[in-house]
Amino acid sequence: MTTRQDALALDARDPLAALRAQFSLPEDVIYLDGNSLGVLPTATPARVAAAVQDEWGSGLIRSWNSAGWVDLPQRVGDKIGRLIGAGPGQTLAADSTSVNLFKVLSAAIAIVKAGGDTQRRVIVSERSNFPTDLYIAESLARQHGFTLQLVEPDEIAAQFDSSLAVLMLTHVNYRTGRMHDMAALTRAAHACGALALWDLAHSAGAVPVDLLGADADFAVGCGYKYLNGGPGAPGFLWVNPRQLERMERDGLWQPLAGWFGHAAPFEFSPHYRPAAGIVRFSCGTPPVLGLTALEVGVDTLLAAESLGGMAALRRKSLALTCHFITLVEKHCAGHGLSVITPRTEGERGSQVNLARADGAYAIVQALIARGVIGDFRAPDNLRFGFTPLYTRFVDVWDAVEHLRQVLDTGEWKEARFHQKAAVT
Amino acid sequence: MTTRQDALALDARDPLAALRAQFSLPEDVIYLDGNSLGVLPTATPARVAAAVQDEWGSGLIRSWNSAGWVDLPQRVGDKIGRLIGAGPGQTLAADSTSVNLFKVLSAAIAIVKAGGDTQRRVIVSERSNFPTDLYIAESLARQHGFTLQLVEPDEIAAQFDSSLAVLMLTHVNYRTGRMHDMAALTRAAHACGALALWDLAHSAGAVPVDLLGADADFAVGCGYKYLNGGPGAPGFLWVNPRQLERMERDGLWQPLAGWFGHAAPFEFSPHYRPAAGIVRFSCGTPPVLGLTALEVGVDTLLAAESLGGMAALRRKSLALTCHFITLVEKHCAGHGLSVITPRTEGERGSQVNLARADGAYAIVQALIARGVIGDFRAPDNLRFGFTPLYTRFVDVWDAVEHLRQVLDTGEWKEARFHQKAAVT
Repeated sequence: MTTRQDALALDARDPLAALRAQFSLPEDVIYLDGNSLGVLPTATPARVAAAVQDEWGSGLIRSWNSAGWVDLPQRVGDKIGRLIGAGPGQTLAADSTSVNLFKVLSAAIAIVKAGGDTQRRVIVSERSNFPTDLYIAESLARQHGFTLQLVEPDEIAAQFDSSLAVLMLTHVNYRTGRMHDMAALTRAAHACGALALWDLAHSAGAVPVDLLGADADFAVGCGYKYLNGGPGAPGFLWVNPRQLERMERDGLWQPLAGWFGHAAPFEFSPHYRPAAGIVRFSCGTPPVLGLTALEVGVDTLLAAESLGGMAALRRKSLALTCHFITLVEKHCAGHGLSVITPRTEGERGSQVNLARADGAYAIVQALIARGVIGDFRAPDNLRFGFTPLYTRFVDVWDAVEHLRQVLDTGEWKEARFHQKAAVT
Repeated sequence: MTTRQDALALDARDPLAALRAQFSLPEDVIYLDGNSLGVLPTATPARVAAAVQDEWGSGLIRSWNSAGWVDLPQRVGDKIGRLIGAGPGQTLAADSTSVNLFKVLSAAIAIVKAGGDTQRRVIVSERSNFPTDLYIAESLARQHGFTLQLVEPDEIAAQFDSSLAVLMLTHVNYRTGRMHDMAALTRAAHACGALALWDLAHSAGAVPVDLLGADADFAVGCGYKYLNGGPGAPGFLWVNPRQLERMERDGLWQPLAGWFGHAAPFEFSPHYRPAAGIVRFSCGTPPVLGLTALEVGVDTLLAAESLGGMAALRRKSLALTCHFITLVEKHCAGHGLSVITPRTEGERGSQVNLARADGAYAIVQALIARGVIGDFRAPDNLRFGFTPLYTRFVDVWDAVEHLRQVLDTGEWKEARFHQKAAVT
């Protein structure tokens, strides 16, 4: 891909090209931020309008049964499960990713405690894991007298000992794009008697995931990134059936013991009795509008199943990120940018992160002003997400060309690109 | 109100009658279930469509700043605050009611523990409180070594001693419609050194509430009942500034320490540092679509401010419930129904609950088949909610007339009305 013509030629023979028609992309935008907020599917407005006007407006309270609202968390959860190597009845769409992490990490801690080994009290994670994961783990460690040990990626291998309770990692790192070997790390955790918990925020819908194949214990993930569920969409959680059975057998609860996780919520019993299976991880009344939009987003990925599914999406994703890295190094050389995302395919998610000692924020703003939307992650990180459902090879070409111009002209030094917004 | 003409006359001179035009009510329905799911405001579909198509579809990730998504929890929270006697910056719209209760009850427990009195370990609530409240309290009591003491309403007065840590009550009971004296009970809790936590699920937007006047410590509530936020709308929470300051001073956290509750979420620091004020009770990324619909719902109540606000709504609500009770007793006598909602005005919320030894479920189903929507609460409870924003006096008349016919004809005995649905 050495000319724009080459990029157009790649798009012309892309077997997944038709999937882009599922999305409403603004004409004037090259959107490389689907890993922060996925694009609006064209089917979403009508589906949400029907939920609002027909199901809520006309059906009113009756829609809990007639429109299937009561099953939404499991129905959408099962659809997500098809993207992450889960079986039916193992995945739940609910709450935020942070709240879901609180549930499953609490469950993991309860299981470790029930194991009776009082020396096993360390939760290991990456120092550059997404902060909300670290905060939730810090809160639970503080509460349960556990230690949260934060390490660099190359230090993880040294953590597998008898003190390890839970290995809690995000599969694809938000600020490096580096992907862990889920199967190998889970195996290593199990070999020393620990549990493995995976955050799939930058994986679900982005890269192939095989939770059952890897024999992971718990997982959570995000609905508004590659799943295209809309701003603040509900997240999801997954629990290995082995751990569900264990919780049932040992009478262990997840602490957010709300009524939708009760075995018989409409009996209105004063005492909590967890539901069988994954439903025990439900808490309050499900967010119907958010789940409705999320289901449409997940369907855009399931539409790829007949075209080769996640494996085909992965092939395109790797081609997009590979071309982006190659072009940045060729066309933007000499401007102090370094590629911090691994070049080895098996270690790369569906994004590319660049670092620059200064000006990263302003360069991202200057690109946004040109319609090339990526994002900045403090203090020095430029992040570009590639969503094979709708990102084209020509978008990669054009984005790098804009980046080259922003750097060559020095336009990013203009004062207006340095004004910080509330959300960066 | 002895004839249907009287009811129509009351509607004709109702100063709040115009507020009904804010809602899309199906023609063929008498909706007495706004305490379970509020009616769709006419403004909601367009507002939600704009959030989906313009803010998400066109604005994409930029809308966190440009559309004010980042401020939604506080902006909607402050609007709710105007309905419940809260000051600005004290209320947050977020998550589900159950999750919010977990946050504030955890905070209350942390404050009690920090007080150092190890004998103060009892949480008192009503046995017939809404189950999710009891389940969350049961979970936290189990975790912290506290005792959850469930009592009948007339036993509450005997609970005020030095063992009481938290008095946790729902202001208006979901299955009796009985309203507690928030100020007196809060005073009694404080007098013995305990904290008072109020669930406003059946109060916010239904009856006047004065949290600051009562000097309550914590409150939570529901967005999809009288606030008309839509199915599974986000809930809300309120914290007395005194307790916010105390948490700050003593370094106490609420345990759902997600990134939106961090003092500087976009610095991406690996360590949690709670935000100042109510924001420390935020957790994950806010549910934008749900909060957008909730804001429209809350606005339908704020529209009453120029007509006398909650005081005027309360006058109408009491008139509606009083007429309903009177008519049921007069027209449905001899059918084994008993009114279990207090007749004393100061003790009644905005609903009327009836009990019947058998057939309660089927009678509710027979009414729904006639277009009169109330709900059944197991095992023997028929519940009718009256929303002064849109319920008319003629609706009260017609509903009782349908109830009379269902009972007189015995049509509720038909087999089809006895088939249980997933959600009752």
